[in-house]
Amino acid sequence: MTRGTLPRRFTAGPSVVTIGPGLLDRAGELLPSPSGRYVLVTSAGPRGAARAVRENLASKVFCEIEIDDREEAKTLATVERIADLALAAGIRRDDALVAVGGGVVSDVAGFAAAILLRGISWSAVPTTTGAMADAAIGGKTGVDHREGKNLLGSFHPPAAVVMDPASLEGLPEREYRAGLVEAFKAAWIADAPLARRAEETLLGILARDEESLLELLGGAAAVKGEIVSADLRESDRRRLLNFGHTLGHAFEAAGGYRDLRHGEAVAWGIAAAVDLSRTRAALPGEDAERIVRTLARLGPFPPPPTDPGRLRPYLERDKKATAKGLAGVLLDRVGAARVEEGVPIESWLDAAARVSIP
Amino acid sequence: MTRGTLPRRFTAGPSVVTIGPGLLDRAGELLPSPSGRYVLVTSAGPRGAARAVRENLASKVFCEIEIDDREEAKTLATVERIADLALAAGIRRDDALVAVGGGVVSDVAGFAAAILLRGISWSAVPTTTGAMADAAIGGKTGVDHREGKNLLGSFHPPAAVVMDPASLEGLPEREYRAGLVEAFKAAWIADAPLARRAEETLLGILARDEESLLELLGGAAAVKGEIVSADLRESDRRRLLNFGHTLGHAFEAAGGYRDLRHGEAVAWGIAAAVDLSRTRAALPGEDAERIVRTLARLGPFPPPPTDPGRLRPYLERDKKATAKGLAGVLLDRVGAARVEEGVPIESWLDAAARVSIP
Repeated sequence: MTRGTLPRRFTAGPSVVTIGPGLLDRAGELLPSPSGRYVLVTSAGPRGAARAVRENLASKVFCEIEIDDREEAKTLATVERIADLALAAGIRRDDALVAVGGGVVSDVAGFAAAILLRGISWSAVPTTTGAMADAAIGGKTGVDHREGKNLLGSFHPPAAVVMDPASLEGLPEREYRAGLVEAFKAAWIADAPLARRAEETLLGILARDEESLLELLGGAAAVKGEIVSADLRESDRRRLLNFGHTLGHAFEAAGGYRDLRHGEAVAWGIAAAVDLSRTRAALPGEDAERIVRTLARLGPFPPPPTDPGRLRPYLERDKKATAKGLAGVLLDRVGAARVEEGVPIESWLDAAARVSIP
Repeated sequence: MTRGTLPRRFTAGPSVVTIGPGLLDRAGELLPSPSGRYVLVTSAGPRGAARAVRENLASKVFCEIEIDDREEAKTLATVERIADLALAAGIRRDDALVAVGGGVVSDVAGFAAAILLRGISWSAVPTTTGAMADAAIGGKTGVDHREGKNLLGSFHPPAAVVMDPASLEGLPEREYRAGLVEAFKAAWIADAPLARRAEETLLGILARDEESLLELLGGAAAVKGEIVSADLRESDRRRLLNFGHTLGHAFEAAGGYRDLRHGEAVAWGIAAAVDLSRTRAALPGEDAERIVRTLARLGPFPPPPTDPGRLRPYLERDKKATAKGLAGVLLDRVGAARVEEGVPIESWLDAAARVSIP
């Protein structure tokens, strides 16, 4: 993708995704609201994107809500707070909610939009690499529960997703890199040319070169958009997006959602899934090495908890666990993932125990 | 409908509705669960139906939750309690929830099913006339908020609705009659022959004669099923079901959800909408009198709060209020309802002030 093709626009199920520079200043045009009125949900932290959207929407914003965007605040109580304030401000069914922030903000605010008046329109303006590549797209919204991550939620796709590289200004390096893991994940499961090109331009991407970065993020978002368009619920192909997430979620949960960022936990989960793909799928050694090498360049990441006793409970209560067992996503080669049903929990635990990103 | 045609079976959107005697003893066959496991949500009060379902499902029930079924308990906190207990019991995505109870139970438990693991299958076994005619059908789930009724919720239709007259055993007379208002409402908006027949057999219905009662409840549920099948969300024809509910909800809310049962408030709302239909629609005087006479036979109902100052705030924040105003459902004749957009709030308040069921 060259700069000449920007802004790039595509659909992800019912969502219209637009990616390119300068979009924040076109918020009023790009963010739909049936009534023309908005509830704006933002977070503490870098506020540039929120300020730009706020200024562009101007008096059409009738309610502004700032929420805590740490994983600890991804709770039903935060959803309730958004609902309380929006209802007290007189929200109507044809108003829209706009979430400006990272994955926690879009997950929580999108869930609030899903249950307010039994569902109002919403849009996402992601401000992290992780939210651009993954969280803002596909309609999964939700919150954590003391029993595990994302256990309460809704499928409620945003009407629009607006991705402007200016939204990433001020994003700490650690979050920037962790989010890129999700972008590479999308390439590895379904787009070999994108993976190859992003691996080649990784130095530029890490230096926040706009063209290389937008190529990767746009490509990753398009992969996710294509998959979720085919299958909004998690019954079939969408499960491919869980590559690296089975152990990733367990690593994250066992670390109390403090020790590892989501993307970092997924990086370790991908490394373990690559290991399993060597023995339980056809993944060539060369492809496995490419992936792990790229993860190493995106890191280093804090080590995950690998004690089987700590991980097992989280695997056993995985949302994707059914009476059949715990399905896993494996790679046959870069760009070709598949779901393997009923991978034994022992195999996951073994892979976790020997995981490494050298 | 004669006894020979029972059980009657029809669809309401994605829901399969079965109505007839003896169904409680076939719960395991009629209530689907992908995994074969169930969470059972019941309420205090008459427990016959819950006991019968429990015995029939036997060891397939892995979690039993009793909730308060008063309107005051129709809160997000009750939904959270169901979610907490189901998650602690290890609920999986292919498990199903079964709600045995009145409208509050199906609204709250259905909403819990909607957000647990981003949506699990559920079924309803209604135990009140109101839930059989209305609440259990159509997929609207939700809870009240201090700003108003049903302000948080989800569209999440049950897989099955099982209606057995035995479920009504022990239902207090006041609830029995209040629920019949919703059944007549369905007939009045869309099924003139059903309305005529139910008016003729009203003595038998009030005496709980099974055949007359099932004819009315089955007919009402079929009307609702037909409407929601065409239009799952509230964008068009489904709004006809709100006949009597614009003022009904305001009466109920202004009374603090204590003074009037939902069906009683709707009865007053219907009387007011009939009044409006005489001047703003083509409703003949004869049809208006038939409806009000039937409401009188279903009553007497406690008087509603009619002070405009108390009612106005609730009308202004009605979920169905848009920038255009507050749409109303009016009758052109028995069996023929239509939506009139933007009925002024003053007109609603005037109709409320002179409402009467002589």
